[in-house]
Amino acid sequence: MSALLDTTDALHDQMIALGRAARAAAAALATVPGPSKDRALRAAAAAIRARAAEIKAANAEDMASARDLSGPMRERLMLDDTRIEAMAKGLEDIADFPDPIGGVLAEWTRPNGLRIQRVRVPLGVVGIIYESRPNVTADAGGICLKSGNAAILRGGSESIRSSRAIASCLAQGLREAGLPEAAIQLVPTTDRAAVGHMLTMRDYIDVIIPRGGKSLIQRIADESRVPVIKHLDGNCHVYVDAAADLEKARKVVLNAKMRRTSICGAAETLLVDRTIADTALPVLVKDLLDAGCAVRGDAAAQAADPRVTAVAPEDWDTEYLDAIIACGVVDGVDGAIDHINTHSSHHTESILTEDPAVAERFLSRVDSGIVLWNASTQFADGGEFGMGAEIGISTDKFHARGPVGAEQLTSYKYVVRGDGQTRP
Amino acid sequence: MSALLDTTDALHDQMIALGRAARAAAAALATVPGPSKDRALRAAAAAIRARAAEIKAANAEDMASARDLSGPMRERLMLDDTRIEAMAKGLEDIADFPDPIGGVLAEWTRPNGLRIQRVRVPLGVVGIIYESRPNVTADAGGICLKSGNAAILRGGSESIRSSRAIASCLAQGLREAGLPEAAIQLVPTTDRAAVGHMLTMRDYIDVIIPRGGKSLIQRIADESRVPVIKHLDGNCHVYVDAAADLEKARKVVLNAKMRRTSICGAAETLLVDRTIADTALPVLVKDLLDAGCAVRGDAAAQAADPRVTAVAPEDWDTEYLDAIIACGVVDGVDGAIDHINTHSSHHTESILTEDPAVAERFLSRVDSGIVLWNASTQFADGGEFGMGAEIGISTDKFHARGPVGAEQLTSYKYVVRGDGQTRP
Repeated sequence: MSALLDTTDALHDQMIALGRAARAAAAALATVPGPSKDRALRAAAAAIRARAAEIKAANAEDMASARDLSGPMRERLMLDDTRIEAMAKGLEDIADFPDPIGGVLAEWTRPNGLRIQRVRVPLGVVGIIYESRPNVTADAGGICLKSGNAAILRGGSESIRSSRAIASCLAQGLREAGLPEAAIQLVPTTDRAAVGHMLTMRDYIDVIIPRGGKSLIQRIADESRVPVIKHLDGNCHVYVDAAADLEKARKVVLNAKMRRTSICGAAETLLVDRTIADTALPVLVKDLLDAGCAVRGDAAAQAADPRVTAVAPEDWDTEYLDAIIACGVVDGVDGAIDHINTHSSHHTESILTEDPAVAERFLSRVDSGIVLWNASTQFADGGEFGMGAEIGISTDKFHARGPVGAEQLTSYKYVVRGDGQTRP
Repeated sequence: MSALLDTTDALHDQMIALGRAARAAAAALATVPGPSKDRALRAAAAAIRARAAEIKAANAEDMASARDLSGPMRERLMLDDTRIEAMAKGLEDIADFPDPIGGVLAEWTRPNGLRIQRVRVPLGVVGIIYESRPNVTADAGGICLKSGNAAILRGGSESIRSSRAIASCLAQGLREAGLPEAAIQLVPTTDRAAVGHMLTMRDYIDVIIPRGGKSLIQRIADESRVPVIKHLDGNCHVYVDAAADLEKARKVVLNAKMRRTSICGAAETLLVDRTIADTALPVLVKDLLDAGCAVRGDAAAQAADPRVTAVAPEDWDTEYLDAIIACGVVDGVDGAIDHINTHSSHHTESILTEDPAVAERFLSRVDSGIVLWNASTQFADGGEFGMGAEIGISTDKFHARGPVGAEQLTSYKYVVRGDGQTRP
């Protein structure tokens, strides 16, 4: 057994108690009407605004204890007025969306008169395991509540004071709406072994969603006995076809790579049809280089601009999350499809072309959660899709794929209404 | 590590080769038009009919080697003309259903003009692990093919000759339709360690569906690193409310328990509202006893008929699959809901009542895959639901719940069509 599963008995009892409370809260939440959940979300948002000073004070303590952390980690940990307002606004946005629960997904009547409905229900209890960003406490708690699920939140130890302050505001919202406070529970201990417990609590947790670096997520997926919705890396591709409109392609390539380089929908590889290596490739590469992006290219890309350095085999599998791009030529759309299906993390890929048949071939054959035609990969986002707040982008195919919002945290049941039918 | 995961290197290589072939076949199958898949299914059905003698000969060898097996196991293993025709007809029925792949589940246009579709796609590679019934080879292979998934089938060693003969007919069907034969592969070895390999092949298998006894399924779920769709036990309940129509209730209770006692949708517990313990309970219990069903009851049920024996605590959690029923009184619909949510396997439960408010309370609060009002639990079946052939009834909430047919073996992708949009 690995370190993650190394646990103690006292902690075990504490975690099981948490699980039992979550299960009871989930049973209550499952049939709570939408307006009650929305009232709790809005009251929590109000509490976050009203108690901003308290949250900032807790965060200041976290920051003071976190002097040894790296710059990016401190940046993620920090809460200011803008971020606190964004949390509150985020909860209100979740409240504004329609209730995903109770909706009839399909209905039909059988020849024997049985009326069958497939109805959306919550999954039950969702475990969220995250790292330094304390705002995940509000975002994830809100999405779980909206979808009628109880949440067990396990934040990073470096942000525990901030997370506690935020969780206290969520509890206040639940209380004011008359909902059970155990609907959103923060694991109180910073003991790392708590994560190991969560991964084995199949009777109390229905799904685990890890938020954080790829290695954390991979380790959780490897060890968990509870189903996991994974958001691994976003090794996203843009393919510029021979039939592309070059001006459109220039705009989209630059946006896909450089708008924000640190998000999972940022492009990490540019593929160009070999037949336009002498024409389009130099223009596209120059745009990127001039914008401050390092380009690691194959022979064709290196020939296109002297500033291009040689690409290494592992570059094709790398999510840089930085101003770096791998670049090479492929043999038409089928070459692009092969390359992408071999190297992609199945997150998001885009084709630039004015040829609809080529585009449709790409869209149907590329095996990724999101495939785009003539649009930037940076649209890979629940909000941009109009799906509301998201808890991540699933790179799995099982259960949920692509943006994971409240609707993706649901299951269904079959409701059958009859009049005394028996089976012959 | 347990015995299931104890493996050897040669077998490992063989299983990985199988996995690679399945992956390649899945990539091809994903975009095969529906009519090609249906052609393969019909050709396989024709091959099964044409080669019935060969299948029966193989089965006779299996039966001869299986002299030491129990009667029920030999019964499940045996293939006769009726069962062979049922396999062929089953494949044709699957062909008759609409193609689940490529359908647009939802579509919308964003203010920036992006047109977003959620489109149904196959999961990829499905692993089926089953026991003695050789007909699962045809049923499971057919459902996987229909849903565009490659299948890796691992049957019981006692039925290996029969399964090979059937798999050969499926391969013939695939060949005749010009589809890759590796779309449906039978694990060639009877080495039990092959199962352990399948459970760790996350790169090659997207979901595992175990078919068989509860202990096999539980063990696979405990050890698998690949997502599992579980069909555990069907500890199904019928609750007769105070507002029930007694004649309707008598018919439904008797059918739910006694129509066939060996299927997962058979009722295993009868709950009756305490207020009708003196009136309805004796009638319902007498019907069951007179039909040859043993009744294990609480004090009220024992008072209703001297033939009722005392129920033990474990009875409430038992799936008898036999002419036995546990029986007791509860305090109204809320008592029934509590009892069911505590003891049920979340499979199928039914309420008998003429009071719509009571019925709706039961339907919304009982946390099972299928909930029925005034109808027999024996309707828990994909065919009875009009969903076509099924591979089992999922007692999970994650990914698939209730009857698992071709549609439940799918995922989706987001297809986004634009005209050069970049994200601001």
